[in-house]
Amino acid sequence: MKKKPLFLISNDDSINSKGLEILINIVKPFGDIVVVAPIEAHSGMSHAITMRFPLTFEKIKEEKHLQIYKCSGYPVDCVKIALNEILEKKPDYILSGINHGSNSSVAVIYSGTMAIAIEGTLHSIPSVGFSIENFNLDADFSNVEKYISVILKNLIKNGIPKGVCLNVNIPKDVKKVKGIKICKEAKGKWQEIFVKRKHPYGKDYFWLTGEFVDLENDKEKSDVFALQNNYIAITPIKIDWTDYKTIKELEEWDL
Amino acid sequence: MKKKPLFLISNDDSINSKGLEILINIVKPFGDIVVVAPIEAHSGMSHAITMRFPLTFEKIKEEKHLQIYKCSGYPVDCVKIALNEILEKKPDYILSGINHGSNSSVAVIYSGTMAIAIEGTLHSIPSVGFSIENFNLDADFSNVEKYISVILKNLIKNGIPKGVCLNVNIPKDVKKVKGIKICKEAKGKWQEIFVKRKHPYGKDYFWLTGEFVDLENDKEKSDVFALQNNYIAITPIKIDWTDYKTIKELEEWDL
Repeated sequence: MKKKPLFLISNDDSINSKGLEILINIVKPFGDIVVVAPIEAHSGMSHAITMRFPLTFEKIKEEKHLQIYKCSGYPVDCVKIALNEILEKKPDYILSGINHGSNSSVAVIYSGTMAIAIEGTLHSIPSVGFSIENFNLDADFSNVEKYISVILKNLIKNGIPKGVCLNVNIPKDVKKVKGIKICKEAKGKWQEIFVKRKHPYGKDYFWLTGEFVDLENDKEKSDVFALQNNYIAITPIKIDWTDYKTIKELEEWDL
Repeated sequence: MKKKPLFLISNDDSINSKGLEILINIVKPFGDIVVVAPIEAHSGMSHAITMRFPLTFEKIKEEKHLQIYKCSGYPVDCVKIALNEILEKKPDYILSGINHGSNSSVAVIYSGTMAIAIEGTLHSIPSVGFSIENFNLDADFSNVEKYISVILKNLIKNGIPKGVCLNVNIPKDVKKVKGIKICKEAKGKWQEIFVKRKHPYGKDYFWLTGEFVDLENDKEKSDVFALQNNYIAITPIKIDWTDYKTIKELEEWDL
């Protein structure tokens, strides 16, 4: 009998999020699970690590094939402490999510969910981040299980190349999902809109909000387009950010 | 007469760092400067943004061609608030640093310094992050001016391609610098070493430390190799992290 794989699962919405619970239940038939997730929500914390404070963790649940720990740090801290202080062996896979809110296009740069998958990839562990285009804490995840299960079957069968992780984004209206598309990141940016308020003592303060601006030319291949058309988007993300094309151009500089 | 360019400068070591002061002085002859830098040091905060708290900023210095603001947020917050609430026009360039500590290889993933340059690139502004391989608060920056000035001259003359920023790393022993090399990111990882301590009330807590493991095969082209051999490394970094090679492979999956 083949040995069951070990999955490390984390997220950035905190140990108490519905998306995490849904993911745990979907992964259960595939192997053993250790969850190490942040105590607090850390949306938008990207690949932050805790350098100025110490970290703590605590086991909060133990079943036969499932252990759950909460950790005081950021999402990437959870991965690091899991690999070094909690797990007795290297996990076969690292999964994160399901994040409440999509991480398509350049949102990957700000995303704690995808930072978990990138950190796993740095440690040569095949890793996938899952997000749904719905910020609601009680988001509708019905219909999601069959698609994530298919992705996990393929992940286990085929693996993913070294240095690459997967960014899986699920459209908001889960009941209308038509299928899965392999995509590229849409070019785009978040255009900030600061909401200015006056402090009772007089000074201005600013809330960071924003809206996504789609700048993609090759729209039909993009993750944003897939979501808009009710497809789940899988985008391969690399951890080597060198722009090799530009190296030649810079070699012409007068340095 | 050609109009002087406008430089936005930020960093992640805080408004009070020596590296920031050095960079401001080097840039002065090239144009007008607005500095918006964090009040506190934020090493290892990567591309984190402040979503759960409001931001504040305050002008702390005004000279003829130099304005300095401190901001309550993370490095990327500084860029966002500068572009939207402080600057009257879009800056021509965004520079960050000089960071105390190198950001070669995969350190770029954890780096607030490079997050500033990546954020600038998202806003289509040519951006460069500068770091020195020396964590000392009073690091030796002698000899650095002439090299950074040459890089700035080339930046202004040649520009950089859309979607790309530059990661400039300076070796520790600045007096021995032999020149500048165009590089790729060294493949590698940070291997964590958690230092375990016992809280006076009994619970364990963990300090995240680590050491860099160089996994690069093509060593001589890497930024880490350049630094080891007393060269300044310039590495072009892209903001589209899609791994296009893997798209074809994923299209063979049974989805």
